[in-house]
Amino acid sequence: MIRFHEKDPYAPIQYSYEVSRILYRGRSKFQDIVVFENPFFGRMMILDGVVQITEKDEFFYHEMLAHVVLKAHPAPKTVVVIGGGDGGTVREVLRHKTVERVYFIEIDEEVINVSRKFFPRVASGIGDRRVEIKCMDGAEFVKSRKHDIDLVIVDSTDIVGFAKSLFTKKFFSSISDCLTPDGMFVSLSESLHFHQEIVVSVQKTLQAVFPVVDLYTAPLATYAGNWWTFSVGSMGLNPREIRGKGRLKTKYYSPDIHKSCFLPGEMYTRLLNGKLGW
Amino acid sequence: MIRFHEKDPYAPIQYSYEVSRILYRGRSKFQDIVVFENPFFGRMMILDGVVQITEKDEFFYHEMLAHVVLKAHPAPKTVVVIGGGDGGTVREVLRHKTVERVYFIEIDEEVINVSRKFFPRVASGIGDRRVEIKCMDGAEFVKSRKHDIDLVIVDSTDIVGFAKSLFTKKFFSSISDCLTPDGMFVSLSESLHFHQEIVVSVQKTLQAVFPVVDLYTAPLATYAGNWWTFSVGSMGLNPREIRGKGRLKTKYYSPDIHKSCFLPGEMYTRLLNGKLGW
Repeated sequence: MIRFHEKDPYAPIQYSYEVSRILYRGRSKFQDIVVFENPFFGRMMILDGVVQITEKDEFFYHEMLAHVVLKAHPAPKTVVVIGGGDGGTVREVLRHKTVERVYFIEIDEEVINVSRKFFPRVASGIGDRRVEIKCMDGAEFVKSRKHDIDLVIVDSTDIVGFAKSLFTKKFFSSISDCLTPDGMFVSLSESLHFHQEIVVSVQKTLQAVFPVVDLYTAPLATYAGNWWTFSVGSMGLNPREIRGKGRLKTKYYSPDIHKSCFLPGEMYTRLLNGKLGW
Repeated sequence: MIRFHEKDPYAPIQYSYEVSRILYRGRSKFQDIVVFENPFFGRMMILDGVVQITEKDEFFYHEMLAHVVLKAHPAPKTVVVIGGGDGGTVREVLRHKTVERVYFIEIDEEVINVSRKFFPRVASGIGDRRVEIKCMDGAEFVKSRKHDIDLVIVDSTDIVGFAKSLFTKKFFSSISDCLTPDGMFVSLSESLHFHQEIVVSVQKTLQAVFPVVDLYTAPLATYAGNWWTFSVGSMGLNPREIRGKGRLKTKYYSPDIHKSCFLPGEMYTRLLNGKLGW
């Protein structure tokens, strides 16, 4: 059997997958890109040796990254998606009828091209007339805007490689400067099983910038550690409340999940104080 | 680097772990037993090639297997633990002050011996005066009791090998016959990511026997699929409600987790109808 062994030096468990067929191998200006087929997960996209999406389970991540802040906002119109070149997050954002404009900022154009070719259902929203694609550094883009963005969603690779610059106080300050008073920011922030210290560091950096900071989780089978966190920075609104109207036909996200996905207060306090005990 | 590659032919992701030191290798009458050390998880026990417990994260599983039904019961006195030879579940059961007797039914005595030697903090409750160890088949034990057990907790290996007999209608009927009117049964029932069909099968088999059946989840990093389910069969009490008094000093389980760990009703219905969509 041919297997792909994930190359994540920061994960204490290495994941490996059967490879039925290799569909694409290439190197962009920024990273190695591989697409292969697995009997259980379908097509999978690998960036620099780490699984980014699979056909079978990408919706867990994309639904949970997009819908929590989109539903916590009363009527989001202008959304920035930084990274997420596969298009899955943009697809979910577009399902909200109030959304008029999505700035889709992906530094690596090649990821968009590969996704359009091999993951057409994931990339399905990229050509929507509301989407403006900009192949540039997300940090540069947010610096160019002032108080006219409702939501900033960062859909980056792990907080270890070149994506590190997306988790600094400087970057978070630029984001808060571009947000409206009801604005919110969200990003994946690693696993509560494996990378507590990164989770806490992202939360504390956000607290230095945003009036409201919170943390929710989702079970992501193909990201090592699986119990992953999403960090929210808000200019004022409590992200635990649902304000958006209308019902989404989703597979995992739901109003019930919205209410139960945030870390319970007592556990959240222990996490920030370094007292989770694991 | 020396690595242990988990041998689980039913998991679409294979997990592998660094091995710092092998502490024990042996074969009991029933299975291969290995204990090794990993830099992140500490000591790990492997049965027939599959990870059972690690020092670092065993509490997730043991707390969640024991405390949900123990807290849903108003005052559990007599508890049966089937399997779980490492002793972790027994340790958690004993933290409830109402408990007077724990029948600890483990078919493989060697697992108990290995745990006492290499996992003393996990096995710490096994010698408690309230615990009666019986090295026999759990199905035989429950057949010998009638309406005098408050809780039956099955802590078995995967529902694929010789533990299969612990998930039949016949076995569940014997359990319901040994339970009091407030009695409950709980068992791990595989991953919602990888083994939906097993989860559904266990739920439907339980429904043929128990008046109340429910399902909750917990994030278990070292069990493939990670987002694992626990199936409850109850003679009448709703397991989502907390009735037990007193506060437990736990790492993961809490009243908040008790309330949020059950599958939301809408998702539960879709699961049973085969319409989760993944």
